Amino acid sequence: MRFIKRFYNYYFAPNKGLAKRLKPLLGYTPTNLKLYVQAFAHKSSHSQKLSGSHNNERLEYLGDAVLGTIVAEYLFKKYPNKDEGFLTKMRSKIVKRKTLDTVGENMGLDAFLGEFNATRLSRSMMGNAVEALVGAVYLERGYNKTKYFVINKMLRLYVNVIALETFDDNYKSQLLEWCQKNGKIVSYKTVSKYKMDKRDRFKVAVYINDEKIATADDFNKKSAEQHASLKALKILKIYNNNHTT
Amino acid sequence: MRFIKRFYNYYFAPNKGLAKRLKPLLGYTPTNLKLYVQAFAHKSSHSQKLSGSHNNERLEYLGDAVLGTIVAEYLFKKYPNKDEGFLTKMRSKIVKRKTLDTVGENMGLDAFLGEFNATRLSRSMMGNAVEALVGAVYLERGYNKTKYFVINKMLRLYVNVIALETFDDNYKSQLLEWCQKNGKIVSYKTVSKYKMDKRDRFKVAVYINDEKIATADDFNKKSAEQHASLKALKILKIYNNNHTT
Repeated sequence: MRFIKRFYNYYFAPNKGLAKRLKPLLGYTPTNLKLYVQAFAHKSSHSQKLSGSHNNERLEYLGDAVLGTIVAEYLFKKYPNKDEGFLTKMRSKIVKRKTLDTVGENMGLDAFLGEFNATRLSRSMMGNAVEALVGAVYLERGYNKTKYFVINKMLRLYVNVIALETFDDNYKSQLLEWCQKNGKIVSYKTVSKYKMDKRDRFKVAVYINDEKIATADDFNKKSAEQHASLKALKILKIYNNNHTT
Repeated sequence: MRFIKRFYNYYFAPNKGLAKRLKPLLGYTPTNLKLYVQAFAHKSSHSQKLSGSHNNERLEYLGDAVLGTIVAEYLFKKYPNKDEGFLTKMRSKIVKRKTLDTVGENMGLDAFLGEFNATRLSRSMMGNAVEALVGAVYLERGYNKTKYFVINKMLRLYVNVIALETFDDNYKSQLLEWCQKNGKIVSYKTVSKYKMDKRDRFKVAVYINDEKIATADDFNKKSAEQHASLKALKILKIYNNNHTT
């Protein structure tokens, strides 16, 4: 009997404090802890603690959809006079990987991910965990309570929606605008074209007043130019990424 | 007073029967009719009846998200042992334009679209109207009742989910499979490459046993081959598109 108890404690005690630690994050005390353990279990993990339960990919799939709808409705009501194009663009700025990674970081999800995974944490695991967590909350609490959680415990705390309105991820046009304001001339040159994974790949350089500022590679010239422009904006210290708080 | 009444009847009488006619479609009698009129108002419409109200694009944006989540959850629960890849693929088969167009057609939305639009109806307006209608239902009835509507009044009636499981829209691999079964050899040739809207465009021909079966054009060879393969499948009468009922 003592052995069973010790066995039980060894395997399940780590989750005992989990409900308490999740409470400030969620705004309520979760009861179906299995769901939350699963939300933090990355597919790459081979942690003993998770044997028997699934990883978080199915929850991520569900949470991605639920989060998208909650954000869609939030924007629909926040901007009653904006058209569908504006709303769609705003939504993708909020639910994109990079924003969610920062949200997950600010929520302190790395501590939970560290606990339930044996592998090294990567930044993109944060955004995945945010989605999986939304999926877990949805399964336990339903749509309306998940909406409350997403809006009050994520959006309002960690996403600067107003800053996102003017946030522009067309780096090429940002760089062009800056150059025009400052009387400089920007130009792009294809430095080389090569093969990678049997596909054409381009190395592009961005020049300002004939001075090479940065280079970048991608599978098409347009994306390579965008990457190079972003690098240039950072080098020139004119890049302002203030959409997460 | 009589004038006002006549004016009122002239402009609003068409909607008087609307609630009654929508009931069998929705499963309940809608009260906020303005929402439903808006759901059927295509942006291209210049119908007098709609002056002052918005077109259906905002509702379509909202309904698209809500429908996506409902379908995501439906599949999540229907297939408890399937991975996220399968679920994502199934979801996109259900919510893709072509499926929704057929659903809208089967729901008889063309009658409503014809009533509230002065322009000629196109097939893609059906799918848009399905999404906008889901948006309207959501705003009037909330998430859970919309879920009931989507599952019982749309999915179960007009989408053959089981058939979609095996539905494969990789026409090239379907054609290859058929040829291998029947001891035939399939091959593709690029017939010509030309410019359209400043972009390269390819004409591709598909051959079976050196006999040219079909040709198709697109901006890349891969899609042109897919289109040509679909044409060939139809010509050979081996194309089976039975995912809507």
